[in-house]
Amino acid sequence: MKILLIGASGTIGKAVEQALSQDHNVISANYSGGDVQVDLGSPESIKAMFATVGTVDAVISTTGLAKFGAFKELTDADYELALQNKLMGQINLIRFGQASVNTGGSIILTSGILSRKPMAGSAVISMANGALESYVNAAALELESLRVNVVAPIFVKETMAMMGMDTQDGLSAADTAKAYVSAVTGEMNGKTLDVIEFV
Amino acid sequence: MKILLIGASGTIGKAVEQALSQDHNVISANYSGGDVQVDLGSPESIKAMFATVGTVDAVISTTGLAKFGAFKELTDADYELALQNKLMGQINLIRFGQASVNTGGSIILTSGILSRKPMAGSAVISMANGALESYVNAAALELESLRVNVVAPIFVKETMAMMGMDTQDGLSAADTAKAYVSAVTGEMNGKTLDVIEFV
Repeated sequence: MKILLIGASGTIGKAVEQALSQDHNVISANYSGGDVQVDLGSPESIKAMFATVGTVDAVISTTGLAKFGAFKELTDADYELALQNKLMGQINLIRFGQASVNTGGSIILTSGILSRKPMAGSAVISMANGALESYVNAAALELESLRVNVVAPIFVKETMAMMGMDTQDGLSAADTAKAYVSAVTGEMNGKTLDVIEFV
Repeated sequence: MKILLIGASGTIGKAVEQALSQDHNVISANYSGGDVQVDLGSPESIKAMFATVGTVDAVISTTGLAKFGAFKELTDADYELALQNKLMGQINLIRFGQASVNTGGSIILTSGILSRKPMAGSAVISMANGALESYVNAAALELESLRVNVVAPIFVKETMAMMGMDTQDGLSAADTAKAYVSAVTGEMNGKTLDVIEFV
């Protein structure tokens, strides 16, 4: 399969690329570097990416910006970043990418467990994640030629270690990547995939 | 209690006003008419409403615009309406209204069952509803002086009848209003209230 991976330079993205690249042709897309560049917050940039890459069998996003921060300090700009980048940026991969996906292919987005298990500081991230999960569930009812799913990671051990956190409750990037591989190769449609169920 | 009801002229809003007005002082807010006018899509309008109304014991929203329409016909403007009106308009009632709510009071928003039980045509509504439910769950962790909840109605019988639909699977506006009354008078916080559980 020819797979376009957006966010390939991130912690999860690298692990997904490693897991898929033995059997598949992975095209990496990043904000800078990679095979093709894309600004997820820009609809025009997303359209240009698909024009450059051409048809693919799958699109995977492991990226999307939203700020973790105290509720009372969140600004209008913090809300807009979550809505226009993490949420609409990924939704636009479906809207503007569906015609570039071969029949029977799929598009896989990334939300996160904070939609259903929030923590102090996660308000706009929870908002974007909850929106993505409900949206994909609904959109799948009307997308006829491809599957759409969203992977909901928990904290990644490598990220926790980098932040000086106890990694016990996290999942390694390599284990997290297994949900994306299952989403690409499986038959599920419109689902939120909890990473822990694919380890 | 002094209760600010936004969307008081709507089908659900009228029933909520009727249910609450015997025991409480309900201030009605509508796009036009009512005790005070507000454009939910305008942050400045929301701030002006709270400045006009002053402190209250509860804020209830039974409104928010988002388009029901075929996935392939949804435009950028349809996404923006759902995000800026139904989603951010209601979120801004918390952000800009929390200081106007007396300690121990609450803010109640409206999502809808389409977040979890989507149907063809509901993509942007499902998106907004899912976002609202996850957001309220997260925000409640950091809001110390008030409760925030979201009511998730199913189809309202009166609306179904007006649209020529079979009303069997709907719930009357009066029964739907019971969830809002419970949210105002109860102790729940950060919850999504399924209307069927309050009949």
